[in-house]
Amino acid sequence: MSQDKQPGADGPQAGSGDYAGTPRPDAMMPTLDEGQLAALREIGREWDQLTADPQVWRQALPVDPALGEYPKDSDFRPARFTKVVDLSGRDGQLPAIETTSAAETPLRPGARFGQAMRRLLEGAPLDASALAVERMRKLVALPVLSADALSSVAYGPEAMLAILVLAGAAGLPYSLPVGGAIMFMMLAVGVSYRQTIRAYPQGGGSYIVASEELGRIPGLIAAAGLLIDYILTVAVSIASGVAAITSAFGSLQPDTVWIGVGVIIVLLAGNMRGVRQAATVFAVPTYAFIAAMAILIIAGLVHAGGRGFHPVPVRHLAVVQALSVLLVLRAFASGSTAMTGIEAISNAVPSFQPVEWRNARITLSWMITLLIAMFAGVLAIARLSGVVPEASQTMLSQLAHLNFGDGAVYIYIQAATAAVLLMAANTSYNDFPRVLFLMARDRQAPRSFLHIGDRLTFRNGILLLSAAAAAIYIGFAGKTGRLLPLYAVGVFLAFTLSQTGMMMHWRHYREQPHWRRSLAFNATGAVMTGIVFVVAGVTKFTSGAWVSIVLIGAIVVICLRIHRYYDMAGQQLALGPGEATTPAAQSTPTARRAATPGAEGGGALGLEARTAEKPAQIHALTVVPVMALDRASIRALAYAASLGQPALALHISPTTEEAGLFLGYWQAWGDHLPLEVIVSPHRAVVAPLVNYIQTLHRQRPDLTLTVAVPELVDRHWWHRTLYEHIAERLQRALRNLPGVVVTSVPFQLAD
Amino acid sequence: MSQDKQPGADGPQAGSGDYAGTPRPDAMMPTLDEGQLAALREIGREWDQLTADPQVWRQALPVDPALGEYPKDSDFRPARFTKVVDLSGRDGQLPAIETTSAAETPLRPGARFGQAMRRLLEGAPLDASALAVERMRKLVALPVLSADALSSVAYGPEAMLAILVLAGAAGLPYSLPVGGAIMFMMLAVGVSYRQTIRAYPQGGGSYIVASEELGRIPGLIAAAGLLIDYILTVAVSIASGVAAITSAFGSLQPDTVWIGVGVIIVLLAGNMRGVRQAATVFAVPTYAFIAAMAILIIAGLVHAGGRGFHPVPVRHLAVVQALSVLLVLRAFASGSTAMTGIEAISNAVPSFQPVEWRNARITLSWMITLLIAMFAGVLAIARLSGVVPEASQTMLSQLAHLNFGDGAVYIYIQAATAAVLLMAANTSYNDFPRVLFLMARDRQAPRSFLHIGDRLTFRNGILLLSAAAAAIYIGFAGKTGRLLPLYAVGVFLAFTLSQTGMMMHWRHYREQPHWRRSLAFNATGAVMTGIVFVVAGVTKFTSGAWVSIVLIGAIVVICLRIHRYYDMAGQQLALGPGEATTPAAQSTPTARRAATPGAEGGGALGLEARTAEKPAQIHALTVVPVMALDRASIRALAYAASLGQPALALHISPTTEEAGLFLGYWQAWGDHLPLEVIVSPHRAVVAPLVNYIQTLHRQRPDLTLTVAVPELVDRHWWHRTLYEHIAERLQRALRNLPGVVVTSVPFQLAD
Repeated sequence: MSQDKQPGADGPQAGSGDYAGTPRPDAMMPTLDEGQLAALREIGREWDQLTADPQVWRQALPVDPALGEYPKDSDFRPARFTKVVDLSGRDGQLPAIETTSAAETPLRPGARFGQAMRRLLEGAPLDASALAVERMRKLVALPVLSADALSSVAYGPEAMLAILVLAGAAGLPYSLPVGGAIMFMMLAVGVSYRQTIRAYPQGGGSYIVASEELGRIPGLIAAAGLLIDYILTVAVSIASGVAAITSAFGSLQPDTVWIGVGVIIVLLAGNMRGVRQAATVFAVPTYAFIAAMAILIIAGLVHAGGRGFHPVPVRHLAVVQALSVLLVLRAFASGSTAMTGIEAISNAVPSFQPVEWRNARITLSWMITLLIAMFAGVLAIARLSGVVPEASQTMLSQLAHLNFGDGAVYIYIQAATAAVLLMAANTSYNDFPRVLFLMARDRQAPRSFLHIGDRLTFRNGILLLSAAAAAIYIGFAGKTGRLLPLYAVGVFLAFTLSQTGMMMHWRHYREQPHWRRSLAFNATGAVMTGIVFVVAGVTKFTSGAWVSIVLIGAIVVICLRIHRYYDMAGQQLALGPGEATTPAAQSTPTARRAATPGAEGGGALGLEARTAEKPAQIHALTVVPVMALDRASIRALAYAASLGQPALALHISPTTEEAGLFLGYWQAWGDHLPLEVIVSPHRAVVAPLVNYIQTLHRQRPDLTLTVAVPELVDRHWWHRTLYEHIAERLQRALRNLPGVVVTSVPFQLAD
Repeated sequence: MSQDKQPGADGPQAGSGDYAGTPRPDAMMPTLDEGQLAALREIGREWDQLTADPQVWRQALPVDPALGEYPKDSDFRPARFTKVVDLSGRDGQLPAIETTSAAETPLRPGARFGQAMRRLLEGAPLDASALAVERMRKLVALPVLSADALSSVAYGPEAMLAILVLAGAAGLPYSLPVGGAIMFMMLAVGVSYRQTIRAYPQGGGSYIVASEELGRIPGLIAAAGLLIDYILTVAVSIASGVAAITSAFGSLQPDTVWIGVGVIIVLLAGNMRGVRQAATVFAVPTYAFIAAMAILIIAGLVHAGGRGFHPVPVRHLAVVQALSVLLVLRAFASGSTAMTGIEAISNAVPSFQPVEWRNARITLSWMITLLIAMFAGVLAIARLSGVVPEASQTMLSQLAHLNFGDGAVYIYIQAATAAVLLMAANTSYNDFPRVLFLMARDRQAPRSFLHIGDRLTFRNGILLLSAAAAAIYIGFAGKTGRLLPLYAVGVFLAFTLSQTGMMMHWRHYREQPHWRRSLAFNATGAVMTGIVFVVAGVTKFTSGAWVSIVLIGAIVVICLRIHRYYDMAGQQLALGPGEATTPAAQSTPTARRAATPGAEGGGALGLEARTAEKPAQIHALTVVPVMALDRASIRALAYAASLGQPALALHISPTTEEAGLFLGYWQAWGDHLPLEVIVSPHRAVVAPLVNYIQTLHRQRPDLTLTVAVPELVDRHWWHRTLYEHIAERLQRALRNLPGVVVTSVPFQLAD
């Protein structure tokens, strides 16, 4: 693993023993590198002159920071901060407070009700300690990790045959070579991933491998392909699972869309609740499906054996398209959708029991064997019994009907199929947010995907996946056949990049045993999956693959812009050497901004401000916009005066008559502070105030202007319709002025 | 006029010579009464100890408030504040600045573009001096003020006949007595309003008269009735006007709704632009309509004369309902819609040339005469020519076709009808916002209706009227017949209350000449309009009047609640005697809140805080939430330190490991400020911080807590999706804590 090429090297890194996709509660907290620490120390030395004896500050603190003692005979229950953890054993000597969930209760009744409802749905909040990764036995890991791959047998063979029968009965014989090619592909990819497992025992998803071995953009392309495919996995699996149900109960067919949306909502709710995977429960559907397929295939073969393995002639098929190379290639591409989900095991190596990589490899081999066997079996009995795809029911349902009528065995097969497909959809709910987390950790996706909620789930990723999958599912009316052309393009792109990355890996690590053999296996995998990607992209381009390709491109562009933005913001926020953020110098943000490229103001202004920078000089001014002399305004004026800095009141008036009236009041009050009256004949309020404050700032860019805005705070939202919200509009407008600090002096109205 | 009963006596009042509904730019500015001024002086004296010599404060001001001098060799153009008006001649000695429109240009490019677009549509902003009211000659006032009343001839008679023909041919003879009753009613109401004009020469709308003479709730009922009816006037007039057009051009019938919505948009745009009424232009449609009616009626009578005034027998009419008293009363109620708009002249007395009230009375008499003549004439020729209402075209259109075929005269009559109806709709655009302005002045409607925009228009009222009228018009598919049952209920309620108010008026002013006669006339008017209100409300209740009645009730309830709220807020905001808002005492808002009823905290806490109130004591604490040690946070810490008050930094951490890491950084920085670390194991950030700050406040309620929140400010909205917005959420949550001042220390990111 080449540390030097790691894109997230400057961000927080998982510990060496960590699972690459483990949610980390403190992933959002930036760490400082040595340069930044040095800068921090330098800044601290500049502060020393101001806070020569920190103990003075500390003793001056008017409250007891331990918060253990509460004023007596008050009706306040000191229940909020109960559990205090002493951190004095660490390098710091300060005590820390650990909050209980009571401290997380919002203050407002509305929000409190919302949180109570969430608790009811999602359960109590969880500590980070609940994150411990479960170690799985091979026999448990197999069903949990292979649900996605194995379930694709439910639609892959059918998708392949559905293309071939477009050429009529003449197309059917091609199912043998095309199916054979797909099975060879499965084998090649499986062997290739065995190499990945060995090289990335901490979990090697396509995004990680491609980023580390090939660079940022290949990594992003792989990630985008994966994201698109996880969304499609949900949509396709649910569509296929619902088809298994509607095949059994035809009367449900018109409700396909609603059933699917309901399933997405259930998955959303369950994953928001963060059901920890009690692996044994999740093992049931997969084993049930494997058993169902085994029963079906054996019964089919027994029946065929009864006929001496002579294929039943298929009913007459209309020739829609001439048999061509293109058609065969399209059938190959469609059938390749059965390969999705193969990479799940290589992602999850750390969740195996030791020796992890060895157990993972064995499990992968089992899975590939099962996948090939089931794929081959389904194709064989379909061919032998003369079944071809139909619109009204799935091929598996036809085969089950043919062999078992519509009794209990039939229902069992359909139920197991639906269940394993639901499990496959659920797999995406684990993988999609994890890829986004990894991308966000590398600052290539919004930081909000780093956030793990109080149920230890990636809430934002889960919400995004649900919304996207539901949109696609509804948009395509829940039809598997219409969704499949979009599918597999992304995943094969990711596979190709990941295998290519592994080739680079082995070239770097020639000291590893068998590196040549591994490189050869990965190269074969890369070529194979590359072929599938090209074939799928080209043959299905017009029928839907273009959507996936465009989306992948869009995601890559957006992620690159996000990364550029975070880099830009991070550079501006980072503490650099020579950073003059002492309390005295702090008041010249313009001066500093002028020194950074792209900042407004220009060099001359900046230099001027810098030379005027002496601690003895007055360096602050408080400005109080006063619309009327009421209690809210007097409170803001009093607050401004209490800061002990020069203060200036601003009144804006629509007419000179009103201005005169206000001046009279001001005189009656005693004219305690300098007042500036602005007459705004066109009744604008916010813009003239902002322009005036901006002019003040330009006149003296070395000043920090504190604008103390009186603000009414109401208890009810509808009361807020009864005011003009000048305070808010002013705050919004002033936020954009450099060197201006906006203070809201609230006046809470009692009810 | 009984000053003592005026509901708005405590609010700003129009000068004695003012038109009651004149928009005043400073209407939003509260005036102080003597008690409040005394309180202000007392508060000022308390401040004296702090700012013993205000000149010290003024000289300490680090900027030149005249803003005439700008730093040289800067690229800043000092063009923003050019016009300075010296107000030193007034009782104050401070200079005021008058802004130019350049000072009203928003800073942000997006907002600037929006304003440029508005300027293009609406024109340049207008000074308040453009408000001068135009004085009208009687011959100009007549068409301008009577468009609403006279135009109702276009639908009133037809609405009456449409009910009568439900009883078949047997119903038609009743048009004579019912029409006669309506005309008598017009006469009675006209005479009644002549009294109002004499008593309210400053303009006596129903809201003003009912409020002043009967009290708050009758005033609100009248206002609600008027508001509903102004909305319906727009909808009905446009529906009827569009019907005049579609009668002439039948192919336009399917587009009725879109034509009407288009007309509403044109009216909205025109009134937002604030087209000052160039009265002569507005006179044209009304005179054209009067001429059209005269031509039509004369031609109809000439034709009938040719037949010896024998009515043409009507074609066979199906009997839908039996002839009954109820049916006749419904016809009467429907026909009464022709009386809407009669009060327009009494509202607008001050816009007449002197002697205003006399000229207004004469004009009113002319209008009533014209209205009765046109109403009678239309009914007569309809009866004589055997025309009955039809769905496909209006009755006026039928009559015009009958007399003039479909040539130029027919087109002229239809165009004049459509034009006068459009004028009538436009009348509501003047009246609706004015009633809301008057209500808002009396603090019975949201303050935003006091606001006059930079085009001197009541933007908010105009927007509300347009939205409401469009909703109703679309809801009723632009069908006059379906809208009319809702109509007239509100206006007759307002009429009745206004006439009843006038009765009370004359009883109070028995020294006035002829007060008995005036009282008798007003009593007749009140009884008459009361009868119409009851008849309309009862007979049309199920077919739509209930909607109006429910809406009137809802508006009254809402306005009462708004009034109660403003009273409550005003009391809390008003400066009372003994109000201790000195800079030292300011920091105990809880103490003061505890003294006001309904404030939280309780008396004990409040008293405690009050005794602890000594200027020498430390009374402020700055709290800085720090998520990471970056430049934004260091800036906020520096700002807090520069305030010279005790400061406390708060860090919130998801794990104790992260907390230890942060403590390390804090030590590296130099541990200049006291730090409190809160470990939040469930990853909540905002709630624990808010609860901690609340606990601090409860521990020492006498402290003013300044929470200095570091905040990133981005240039582009989409960048804002890339952060967690902890600062904003914190600010929103902290606004509700008493005694907490929230300061946003912005860190502007360059692009």
